[in-house]
Amino acid sequence: MIDFPYIRDICHKTPSKIVLLVIDGLGGIPHPKTGKSELESACLPNLDNLATRSATGMTIPVAPGITPGSGPGHTALFGYDPVKYLVGRGVLEALGLDINLEDDEVAVRGNFCTVDKTSNALLDRRAGRIYSIESTPLAAMLNEIEIPGIQIAVHPGKDYRFVLTMRGNNLGASVSDTDPIPPENSPSSATALTEDSRATAIAANEFISEAREKLSGQERANMVLLRGFSKIPSWPQIDEVYRLNPAAIAAYPMYRGLARLLGMKVLNTGSTFDEQLGTLENSFEDHDFFFLHYKAADAAGEDGNFEGKIKTLEDLDKKIPRLIDLDIDTLVICGDHSTPAVLASHSWHTVPLLINASHTEGDGVESFTEKACATGSVGQIHASSVMTLALANAGKLARFGP
Amino acid sequence: MIDFPYIRDICHKTPSKIVLLVIDGLGGIPHPKTGKSELESACLPNLDNLATRSATGMTIPVAPGITPGSGPGHTALFGYDPVKYLVGRGVLEALGLDINLEDDEVAVRGNFCTVDKTSNALLDRRAGRIYSIESTPLAAMLNEIEIPGIQIAVHPGKDYRFVLTMRGNNLGASVSDTDPIPPENSPSSATALTEDSRATAIAANEFISEAREKLSGQERANMVLLRGFSKIPSWPQIDEVYRLNPAAIAAYPMYRGLARLLGMKVLNTGSTFDEQLGTLENSFEDHDFFFLHYKAADAAGEDGNFEGKIKTLEDLDKKIPRLIDLDIDTLVICGDHSTPAVLASHSWHTVPLLINASHTEGDGVESFTEKACATGSVGQIHASSVMTLALANAGKLARFGP
Repeated sequence: MIDFPYIRDICHKTPSKIVLLVIDGLGGIPHPKTGKSELESACLPNLDNLATRSATGMTIPVAPGITPGSGPGHTALFGYDPVKYLVGRGVLEALGLDINLEDDEVAVRGNFCTVDKTSNALLDRRAGRIYSIESTPLAAMLNEIEIPGIQIAVHPGKDYRFVLTMRGNNLGASVSDTDPIPPENSPSSATALTEDSRATAIAANEFISEAREKLSGQERANMVLLRGFSKIPSWPQIDEVYRLNPAAIAAYPMYRGLARLLGMKVLNTGSTFDEQLGTLENSFEDHDFFFLHYKAADAAGEDGNFEGKIKTLEDLDKKIPRLIDLDIDTLVICGDHSTPAVLASHSWHTVPLLINASHTEGDGVESFTEKACATGSVGQIHASSVMTLALANAGKLARFGP
Repeated sequence: MIDFPYIRDICHKTPSKIVLLVIDGLGGIPHPKTGKSELESACLPNLDNLATRSATGMTIPVAPGITPGSGPGHTALFGYDPVKYLVGRGVLEALGLDINLEDDEVAVRGNFCTVDKTSNALLDRRAGRIYSIESTPLAAMLNEIEIPGIQIAVHPGKDYRFVLTMRGNNLGASVSDTDPIPPENSPSSATALTEDSRATAIAANEFISEAREKLSGQERANMVLLRGFSKIPSWPQIDEVYRLNPAAIAAYPMYRGLARLLGMKVLNTGSTFDEQLGTLENSFEDHDFFFLHYKAADAAGEDGNFEGKIKTLEDLDKKIPRLIDLDIDTLVICGDHSTPAVLASHSWHTVPLLINASHTEGDGVESFTEKACATGSVGQIHASSVMTLALANAGKLARFGP
C-alpha cells in the first residue's frame, strides 16, 4: 500500500472520528461564457465558511493528466496507490449487489443496450436507461442461459445494468470488453488476452449469442455489452492498516462494493442524501471513520448540465450544517476526480480539498473553489495522501523516526 | 539515495559555497486567538528582506501527514530518502557523543527516569530533567555493571540522557523499547523482535535490573528507560555523492552524530548560536558546504511556548546580517519539520524554504512566513529535493542528458 510504507507502525487508535465526504466529480472548469467554474458559480455559504476555518489544498487524483474512473479515484482517497490497486468493474458491481464472489469466480459488468437490428450498429449503450422494473425480468431470462461446463449466473443491477458471474475450471479473467472501440460501432466479441482466459472468452461469446436471441423481441434492450472481466483481489484492509473501525455510507452499488473490498462495514441507508446523513447521525457512535459518498455532482457533470451541477452543489451546501452539528473531529471534504460539465465527463483536473479539524484555523482561503483552494496550506498533493493527512489531523499518527 | 538517481554523474566541484541553515521546528500554525503563526507574529526584518531577494517555497518533510522525528527530518534535507535511510536513536546519540561505534556494536539511548517505588508506575520520563552534573556520576555508577559474555559501557549524555553500548558475539539490534506504550504505565521489558536479538534483549533486561538496584537510593533518577537499539548503518557519503567538502556546525549531539554518519566534518563549536556563527566565519575558507543548525525554535515549540518561539525567531533574525556579510554563494534557510507551539510537538505541516543565490531576484514574496512562501517560485517540494536545488543554485550541477 500506500504513500507511506510505515503507516501501520505509526497509526494508533484514538476516540477521534473522521468523516471523509467524497463529492463525486467535485472539481470543474470555467464555463466559457462566464469564466467561472461550477463551484465559483454556485452559492455555497456553508462550504465557504467552513473553508475559512480549514486547511485547504488541491488533490491530483492519480497523476497529472490522468482521468480516473470511479475505482482508482476512490482507492486513492483511501490511501491506496491507485495504479497498483486496480479492481475490475465486474467485481465492483458484483460486490455492490451483495453477490458473494468466490476467489475463482469471474465477474463481468453487463449493460443492456440497443442495436440496429439490421446493421448491428450500437444505437444506445444503455438501452434508453431503462428502469429496473423493465430490466429485472430480462436479467431473469438471461439467467436461464446454460453454458456447458461453466456455472453462470445473471444478477440484475440498477436500471440498465446487470452482473454476469462465471465459475468453472480455472477461468482466467483477462478478457477484452465488448463495448465497441471507435471507429467500430457494433458490439465486439470477447477476446482472451491470456491463454488461461480462452475458455472464459468462449463462454462469454456463447452467452452473448444466446442473450441476443432471447432479447430479439425487445424494443430497446435487444442486446448486451460486457466489460470489466475480473476476479476478486486480496487487498490490505483499512481496519488493519489504519487501526480504524470504518463504515461506508453510499447509495450506488459500485461505491458500496469498493468500500466492502477495503474492509469497511457498508451501512444500510436510503437513496437520498438526507437519508444517508441520517444513517451517519444514527451510527456516529459506532465507528471512528466514515466514508460518505455524494453522487449527484458527478451525475450532473457527466450529463453536461452546468446549471444542474451548480444545483447539486448548492443542495449539498444546505446539508453542511448537519455535518457541523455532529462535531466531527476531522471532517474531510474532497472529490474522487473532476467532472466538468463543460466536458460532460470525468477529467484529469485537480480537485479541491478541505480538512477541518481542531487545529485548523484557516489559510486565508475564503471560498471552496478550485482557485481559492489552490492557495491553501495543504498545497497540491496526490489524492493518495489525503488519508494520511486526515489521520494526522485526527491525532491518530505517531511521530516517524527518532 | 536520493530523489535523483544520476546525481553523482552531474555534480561537479566548484569554488562556490553553500550554507544550509536548518531552523529546527521552523514551521508553525496560527494561534487560535490571532489567526497568525509564530513566523507571522514575529518581527523578522532581515529574513523578510532576504525573502524579497530569494526563491521561496514550502517543503514536505517526509510525506503529507507524516510527522518526522529529527532524524528523518534532517536526512531528507541532505537529499537522502528519509524512509529508506533510517538510523536508530541509539546510534544517533552515540555518534553525537563522539563514541566510536564498531560495526557489530549495539547502541541504545538511555533516559534516567523516575518511577513510583511501590507501584513501579512511570512518574517522569526524564527524571525531572536532571542536569549533567547530577547524571554523570550516575552513568559512571551504571558503567560498573557487568554482564557475562558481553562488553557493555555506559556513556553519560546531556542532562538526563546516556548511551548504553553492547558488544558481544553477533548481537542483533532488533529489540523493543522499554518506554511504556499506553495504556501501560510502567517501564516495559526489552523484547527481542528477531531470533538473533535474543541475547541482546536478555542482556538489556539484566542491565535494567542491576541499574534499578544501583539507583534505588536516588530521589529522582531511580530507574532507566532504553530505546532505539541500533547498529551503525553504512550510507553513501556526502563528499562522495555531491563532491563537496562538507562541514557541520551544531551544538546538540544528535545532529552532530547524524552529520558524522553522512560524512561531514563536525566542527568544534560553542553552545550559543553566536559561537556557532563564529565557527562558520572562522572556517569559511576550509569547506564548500556548511550545515548550520539552529535548535532554539524547536525547543520553544515543543514546550508549547508561542511567545518563546517568536523570540527565538527574532533572535535568529538579528544574526542574519552576519550570514549576509559572509557573501555566501547559496544560502538556504529551511526547517527539518514544523513544531507549532499550539501543538507543543513536531508536526506534519509543510515548512518554509528560502534559497538566496546570485540569480535569485525574488518571487514577489515579501515575508518569510508559511503563507507567503507557499506562493513562491519553488512551489511545494519534498525536503529531499532541497539539496539538489541548493547545488543547482550554486552552479554545481551539470545538465542532465544530451
